[in-house]
Amino acid sequence: MSPFVPGPAIRVEGRSGGPLSGLTFAAKDLFDVAGYPTGGGNPDWARQNPIPERHAWAVQTLLNAGATLVGKTITDEVSLGILGENAFDGTPENPAAPGHVPGGSSSGSASAVAAGLCDTALGTDTGGSVRVPASFCGLYGIRPTHGRLDLTGMMPQAPSSDTTGWFARDAGTFARVSDVLLSEAIGPALPTKLVIATDAFGFAEPSTAAALQPLLGKLTRLVPDHREDLLAPPGLTAWARAQRTLQPVEAWDTFKAWVERDNPRFAFSVARGLVMAAMTPEAERGWAAMVRQEARGRMRWLLPSGTVLAMPSTPFPAPKAGLPVPALTPIRDAILGLCAVGGLAGHPQVNIPGALAEGRPVGLSLIAARGADALLVRTALALEDA
Amino acid sequence: MSPFVPGPAIRVEGRSGGPLSGLTFAAKDLFDVAGYPTGGGNPDWARQNPIPERHAWAVQTLLNAGATLVGKTITDEVSLGILGENAFDGTPENPAAPGHVPGGSSSGSASAVAAGLCDTALGTDTGGSVRVPASFCGLYGIRPTHGRLDLTGMMPQAPSSDTTGWFARDAGTFARVSDVLLSEAIGPALPTKLVIATDAFGFAEPSTAAALQPLLGKLTRLVPDHREDLLAPPGLTAWARAQRTLQPVEAWDTFKAWVERDNPRFAFSVARGLVMAAMTPEAERGWAAMVRQEARGRMRWLLPSGTVLAMPSTPFPAPKAGLPVPALTPIRDAILGLCAVGGLAGHPQVNIPGALAEGRPVGLSLIAARGADALLVRTALALEDA
Repeated sequence: MSPFVPGPAIRVEGRSGGPLSGLTFAAKDLFDVAGYPTGGGNPDWARQNPIPERHAWAVQTLLNAGATLVGKTITDEVSLGILGENAFDGTPENPAAPGHVPGGSSSGSASAVAAGLCDTALGTDTGGSVRVPASFCGLYGIRPTHGRLDLTGMMPQAPSSDTTGWFARDAGTFARVSDVLLSEAIGPALPTKLVIATDAFGFAEPSTAAALQPLLGKLTRLVPDHREDLLAPPGLTAWARAQRTLQPVEAWDTFKAWVERDNPRFAFSVARGLVMAAMTPEAERGWAAMVRQEARGRMRWLLPSGTVLAMPSTPFPAPKAGLPVPALTPIRDAILGLCAVGGLAGHPQVNIPGALAEGRPVGLSLIAARGADALLVRTALALEDA
Repeated sequence: MSPFVPGPAIRVEGRSGGPLSGLTFAAKDLFDVAGYPTGGGNPDWARQNPIPERHAWAVQTLLNAGATLVGKTITDEVSLGILGENAFDGTPENPAAPGHVPGGSSSGSASAVAAGLCDTALGTDTGGSVRVPASFCGLYGIRPTHGRLDLTGMMPQAPSSDTTGWFARDAGTFARVSDVLLSEAIGPALPTKLVIATDAFGFAEPSTAAALQPLLGKLTRLVPDHREDLLAPPGLTAWARAQRTLQPVEAWDTFKAWVERDNPRFAFSVARGLVMAAMTPEAERGWAAMVRQEARGRMRWLLPSGTVLAMPSTPFPAPKAGLPVPALTPIRDAILGLCAVGGLAGHPQVNIPGALAEGRPVGLSLIAARGADALLVRTALALEDA
């Protein structure tokens, strides 16, 4: 399945002479591209919105920097999905693990970069939608600090967790694009301290945790001052449950008016998620908000300036494509067990590729203090050279 | 919007020399037609089922009697709908009330007959799916005694309420088709007693109740021994709530394995109905089963042999097409207030056309004892002549 959305070919030339001249990029179909409908992975979403007249901020920024847009990519329906299987548009191939899902919801963006159809691609990450496909497709990928980038022209889902991210095959391209989108030169400083999240490694499947050891070894040689600690003392499960409460409730707030007015078509599982979100008890929302506040405090304490935390990006490599729906629930839950921290706390997180478990890619995640996105990109560059 | 499902034209000639020779018919896309997929109004239903090799019993019976099949008609998704708006296939026109819904779920069958595209058409009625479109499109329509017809090759929804029904524009054609499908000659005897359901007339909008008075007048001249009585002493609301509990729960039992395996696409409102059905508390199911038992007793008492009951088929004529979803809930609830009796008690019910409220058709319903379907058809013939 092509990673690009059906329809006419799209090409918008980048400005000549910019820092990204010569690079090509694709944009997840959640980003506005002037003159084309923003589909959002759902056949009824585009109908209610006018065709955008302006590019999204991230698209315009890449074009201004010289990169050329070569297509819009498939996404899970209204970005509600983590595996990359869209019942309407199909499942983009995972070039690094044929027959397996690409990961989602930025499925087409990861697939297109992994297949070499473009050099970089824009995605979004609310609950793992850049980190998971980066891990499954063997790519560099970033979820930047929440609130750092201008999200104008990006279709929202759960605004308190939504971010714009991007993918690349090599650290050099990843750093060039990051420099532009972060509006910050990637400086030379490396982390001074490293925390290895033992609960997160313990939560991953043993074969995945083992596969990441060589990368972790390179990292500890790069950052010798390291220690083991818990990411989530109340349990990764508690953090995941909080995020699984907060994010759908916020998504329902985002989509409710549209859903109630237009009665759009959804895959059953997506509709069910929205129905359950609408019925979430107030007490559960309140509990989840408390857990989030506590998680934010924990992350501030764990990650002072200069410190990075390492953990597996996903608990396993890409599952098979086309699994029956009942088999997907525990898979999604397990992925959220490791990804919830991103949406809950809003820290920047980068996926480092380079490991294989059972022959398929899995990535190592690095997390830093809010605003320290560039430190993570620098670490990715240094690890590639190490 | 054409009432026929998209795809190749379908025509199967009827056997020559039969009692229905010269008539054409269409079949709701819930009935198997050998060599064509049974779509069920949902794009993912046909995928899981092989193309049928045999015609459904009702289709074969009409062909054997000489009628020629000229098409398969649009239905609400998996017959879960009462207005006739299908998010995938569109909304068939209501030729009798342009710009208004045809009623569902046998929407295309009613639309095709009303437009003169065929002489009769097969529908199904679980919770009102023949009676409502017959009322809205100004047609004769029957929901036969539950359990009387062979439902082989008809896609089930809630088996304890499912029936095969049919439509016609004139009482003569209606009687010819009924003779064949009921396998019973329509005898000369008229009802000996008439009950006028005062609660049902009171529940209808005053303009609809008033519009039905001339038809009711003809009926009382035909059956002078008449009295007023309540259809549902515990309240039409209680009966409707019971049916709204039992039918979706049974539909979920019917579709659960498919939904959980294939994660099919649905309009949001259809998916929400299934999700809510799956969560119905056991106590609510038990209460509903008790109400059903009580309703059956009431109907046996009201309708001894030879008695018919008269009530409005729908509380109002066809609502506008394309109303926003929140506006549809009270409309559906009100329709169920009058239609619940069919699925709950399983008595035969015929819609008599001929009245207009606000310029749009509304029908008078006649209900008789179980098995007295032919008596209702005879009454329809006599009313047309009166």
